[in-house]
Amino acid sequence: MRKLIFILPIVTVLLYACSNKQTKQQASVNGHFNEQRNLVFPQGNKITNAHFIGAAYLQMLINADSLNDISIGNVTFEPGARTNWHIHPAGQIILATEGVGYYQERGQPKKVLHKGDRIKCPPNVPHWHGASKDSAFVQLAISSGAKGPAIWLEPVTDQQHEGTLLNE
Amino acid sequence: MRKLIFILPIVTVLLYACSNKQTKQQASVNGHFNEQRNLVFPQGNKITNAHFIGAAYLQMLINADSLNDISIGNVTFEPGARTNWHIHPAGQIILATEGVGYYQERGQPKKVLHKGDRIKCPPNVPHWHGASKDSAFVQLAISSGAKGPAIWLEPVTDQQHEGTLLNE
Repeated sequence: MRKLIFILPIVTVLLYACSNKQTKQQASVNGHFNEQRNLVFPQGNKITNAHFIGAAYLQMLINADSLNDISIGNVTFEPGARTNWHIHPAGQIILATEGVGYYQERGQPKKVLHKGDRIKCPPNVPHWHGASKDSAFVQLAISSGAKGPAIWLEPVTDQQHEGTLLNE
Repeated sequence: MRKLIFILPIVTVLLYACSNKQTKQQASVNGHFNEQRNLVFPQGNKITNAHFIGAAYLQMLINADSLNDISIGNVTFEPGARTNWHIHPAGQIILATEGVGYYQERGQPKKVLHKGDRIKCPPNVPHWHGASKDSAFVQLAISSGAKGPAIWLEPVTDQQHEGTLLNE
């Protein structure tokens, strides 16, 4: 019995240290976005133009050139951040890679996007995309510049951002 | 001293168990590809056409249509697997998302690709891509079908695959 008095505190401390370390590591194994972002592409720089609400970041991965007009950007939205409504004359493809995001076309219900989801936004359809209220969102944006740059429209209101169904 | 005889084996076993579990978890935190593939997109189906050597898998993410001619596929190459030499009439973009891969244009040194690397292959340039010898490789392949489908050429020999510099 006296031996237990010596052994138990040591065992307890060791088990606690072990379990605590594993819990922290498990969080990143599971890709818990807010604790550790183990992402494929860099976050890039904060977007400072007037076409976004909230904190969003852009890392261009591929720039269009005279031989290939496809450009690809890695966009990171902090919780609540989003684009204004806008149009891509040649359409846009969105690949969701982390977090929880929203996508909405004018007059349609808002869609919730998770890692692995894909969106094909048709040419000339007003739409917006961004993070959900409580989670950041990372996505690849792929578009062709063949028909000209994006046309930016009005901001997405908080009511639109938080709408769960048709919110026009 | 006698107490140590009781305590030491317990401490040793606990420390070993703790460290062993953490090492395994760390491997997946670090994205060790062969132990755990925590990937964004599905692997898809095994490619059965004659334009590949070794085991490769394709999950189409975006199909071209009449409004947008960009297509995106998620391609997974097992170690040593690769495409034949081929040409994309409108060029191709490769985004490396996991593992270690190779990319080579005809007459140029082979490039080693890691997670996060990007390649822009110009139109009509013969090239191949695939996994390295010892690691699988996952990539997104993005191309426009506007100028027609890929043109497939001869297989990549083992000597070409393992070449470290110019290997034509």
